Amino acid sequence: MSQVIDLNCDMGESYGRWTLGDDQAVMPLISSANVACGFHGGDPHVIRQTVERALRHGVAVGAHPSLPDLMGFGRRVMDVTPAELRDYVCYQTGAVREFCRAAGVELQHVKPHGILYTMAERDEAIAQAIGEAARQSGERLILMTLASGKYDAHCRKMGVRVASEGFADRAYEVDGQLVSRKKPYALIIDPARAAAQAVRMAAEGKVRTHDGVDIDLSVQTICCHGDTPGATAIIRAVREGLERAGIQVRPLRDWLP
Amino acid sequence: MSQVIDLNCDMGESYGRWTLGDDQAVMPLISSANVACGFHGGDPHVIRQTVERALRHGVAVGAHPSLPDLMGFGRRVMDVTPAELRDYVCYQTGAVREFCRAAGVELQHVKPHGILYTMAERDEAIAQAIGEAARQSGERLILMTLASGKYDAHCRKMGVRVASEGFADRAYEVDGQLVSRKKPYALIIDPARAAAQAVRMAAEGKVRTHDGVDIDLSVQTICCHGDTPGATAIIRAVREGLERAGIQVRPLRDWLP
Amino acid sequence: MSQVIDLNCDMGESYGRWTLGDDQAVMPLISSANVACGFHGGDPHVIRQTVERALRHGVAVGAHPSLPDLMGFGRRVMDVTPAELRDYVCYQTGAVREFCRAAGVELQHVKPHGILYTMAERDEAIAQAIGEAARQSGERLILMTLASGKYDAHCRKMGVRVASEGFADRAYEVDGQLVSRKKPYALIIDPARAAAQAVRMAAEGKVRTHDGVDIDLSVQTICCHGDTPGATAIIRAVREGLERAGIQVRPLRDWLP
Amino acid sequence: MSQVIDLNCDMGESYGRWTLGDDQAVMPLISSANVACGFHGGDPHVIRQTVERALRHGVAVGAHPSLPDLMGFGRRVMDVTPAELRDYVCYQTGAVREFCRAAGVELQHVKPHGILYTMAERDEAIAQAIGEAARQSGERLILMTLASGKYDAHCRKMGVRVASEGFADRAYEVDGQLVSRKKPYALIIDPARAAAQAVRMAAEGKVRTHDGVDIDLSVQTICCHGDTPGATAIIRAVREGLERAGIQVRPLRDWLP
Repeated sequence: MSQVIDLNCDMGESYGRWTLGDDQAVMPLISSANVACGFHGGDPHVIRQTVERALRHGVAVGAHPSLPDLMGFGRRVMDVTPAELRDYVCYQTGAVREFCRAAGVELQHVKPHGILYTMAERDEAIAQAIGEAARQSGERLILMTLASGKYDAHCRKMGVRVASEGFADRAYEVDGQLVSRKKPYALIIDPARAAAQAVRMAAEGKVRTHDGVDIDLSVQTICCHGDTPGATAIIRAVREGLERAGIQVRPLRDWLP
Repeated sequence: MSQVIDLNCDMGESYGRWTLGDDQAVMPLISSANVACGFHGGDPHVIRQTVERALRHGVAVGAHPSLPDLMGFGRRVMDVTPAELRDYVCYQTGAVREFCRAAGVELQHVKPHGILYTMAERDEAIAQAIGEAARQSGERLILMTLASGKYDAHCRKMGVRVASEGFADRAYEVDGQLVSRKKPYALIIDPARAAAQAVRMAAEGKVRTHDGVDIDLSVQTICCHGDTPGATAIIRAVREGLERAGIQVRPLRDWLP
Repeated sequence: MSQVIDLNCDMGESYGRWTLGDDQAVMPLISSANVACGFHGGDPHVIRQTVERALRHGVAVGAHPSLPDLMGFGRRVMDVTPAELRDYVCYQTGAVREFCRAAGVELQHVKPHGILYTMAERDEAIAQAIGEAARQSGERLILMTLASGKYDAHCRKMGVRVASEGFADRAYEVDGQLVSRKKPYALIIDPARAAAQAVRMAAEGKVRTHDGVDIDLSVQTICCHGDTPGATAIIRAVREGLERAGIQVRPLRDWLP
Repeated sequence: MSQVIDLNCDMGESYGRWTLGDDQAVMPLISSANVACGFHGGDPHVIRQTVERALRHGVAVGAHPSLPDLMGFGRRVMDVTPAELRDYVCYQTGAVREFCRAAGVELQHVKPHGILYTMAERDEAIAQAIGEAARQSGERLILMTLASGKYDAHCRKMGVRVASEGFADRAYEVDGQLVSRKKPYALIIDPARAAAQAVRMAAEGKVRTHDGVDIDLSVQTICCHGDTPGATAIIRAVREGLERAGIQVRPLRDWLP
């Protein structure tokens, strides 16, 4: 399919005295960083360090806004109104964008964090609110969405600049949804398997589901999770696998229409 | 002195279920609004409403960043490092700026909230940190400072675009500092007296201290506090007094060099 | 029915610079105060003042724990686990209890705040978690529940010391549930009607639903909301109505088995 | 000197998704745990786990209250009033005590966290506020203070039940104060040296300062920090050193008058 792909990972999820993830090892391996904005991780000092680290490695910066739930790391459904959510996304996007401005780089994208991703898939009003926030933040701002999902389709229809996302380290259902984390086979922790899945997504636009069916999946960006044990090895394998297959790993800003 | 002046007030200090100040009554009377950014008041939903309200009245929007102290309303000294403070200011400035972007208006200024104002006056490293944050946020962004103070002088020397601020409703010491709130005569609550002080500041560049000495005070913006009882009447008197004296009340963006 | 009843109201929901409700006027009218614990309102300083105010008026103190959602005032469903919720209730109950200890009074009760009340009614695991937290906090601690609801029944079955609650200022459905706040006739704002409803609940154990059916409702405590306009007049009417009907208003600790 | 000593360490400083310290390894080595109360670390879920872990190892539980500064881990001076501080301590003490109640164990002590320790030493009004909070929480509650400091002396004069604390892993000045962390020789990271210092404190009531002077230091509890690299090895060496020297390590509740 495409000969160029974006590789993204959540970054900057430390907070105050607490450290999370190995940003130092992972940043050189990716092309886009989803930077936590303070609502689930990422205090202002951490955001600046993360943006500057991304800049040093030529990695594009995105905002990774969350529900206001520090204690729950943004992973618990909250019954916010669409208008509240739109405003939370706007606030956090601006916060990260200002550090980009200070560092002399453009904010590339926004990607909803944690349970927001799922909420947007389930509830059109939530997808709409996120799409609106993205659109209000400028027509060039890219929104990451779940490839082949309803939230992706809805935001494309709204005219938002969308990058559909696939996952290297997650198993798929036949309808293009991710296998629930409650199932034992949800995660792909073998680096070679994750790399192979990423290569096939990028090169052929296909993924094999957990039960062996090939489905179409058109993706512009591939995500690897950074907070699982062994994450760095998986990300390295994915990066190297893509390059060996002749697929360039480059930030979306360089090539997404 | 000048025949044009800016009139500013703190706005948007409500939070969730709690309401503070009478923004509806005050907004039409001022030319610049200092919008709380979430650290001492002003949740994202309130910020949006405040920015939109300002826009409806042709009032320019500024960010009003605070120390991270919701419980203390940003009024308690915290021993933050200059780098931490610079990053808190950057974060909050960006948050408000994004709502400006969504509303299609430029962010005009930044004004440190509460005890930060005092800390910047006392400690050059704090003044420097605020100045740096402002400068990183763009050369056109205006920083409000205490007229004739050290923080004002320091930021001007740094090349920051500064608007010196005077207070209509506060008594002055002979060195140009405000009389401490601990003294009984610190506040000017008589609307006519506040208006007279504002007019003299704007027209002559002078203020009479609490003990009857005339001192020079060059100001480009005049502040009225919005959360004291009777505030709306004071602000109305100041606005009308300025206009009666032939002084235009217009936002800094329109005329500050 | 009973010739004694408890009258409760939410108190201490101010926070830092923000004031909410008229605790000074309402406290003398009630027999039990539900004290906000910091998660939706009520910083530590406010809690102490509220406990001391209750003590001065012979009003019994209860903890009013919430979901950790200051921005949403604890009124938004959050998908917390039962174990998380149990621990939030335990934490907040202890915080208020320590101020009781400092003031030399026993903590009387715990009443879940805001949406927790609804969540407990809908989801048995949530009711169970609240019941467990109450039970762990000691067998004499009283838990307030919605009269005739599932959460009430479940906690009684668990052996928790329960006081069933009725509402003077809310309309009822025929199944004993409150009319949704989304319906125009949900609130009873006429003081005389609220008083009549309270008297009938206390004296006869009955309430007339919004569509005119009499249903049984056994209550030991009656709630008036403190944050609606006109609340003080309603609470005063309820208090006076109960006393005129010969029903004593006394805290649960004095008479609940 | 004494043939029995208490050994304490800060515990439960994880928060939500973030982990800090190695509580599992350290808990079996100490006799008293200072449990973070939510203001600098330690969400309610973590507090319960920490209290239960302490109980399993026969370790006594104390509250470790902080300034409300999650982002700064309670290590930054805040200009709170004594009354505010007293209420913060009361709130947090109660929260931890309720988990003790749920677990069926008594709260043993309270120890101010981070910069509060220093603030209490410098400012008598702060020492007084902490002493009052402790006294209001019951005459049997033990307060940990810096051995030979002003805060220790002040609280003893107030009649608070005080345990004076020495540090195994910190160098001392000749006036009994700790060497500032800014000096390169502030920390004792050699396990054998830390153990020797602890043994001498416990057995002889003396400590050798960084410049070789022996001073008197009467301590009832010895602290090892848990969040420095190599902390577990240091704590193990201290524990074994004390036992080898024939000094029993037992919680204060068992023997402090």
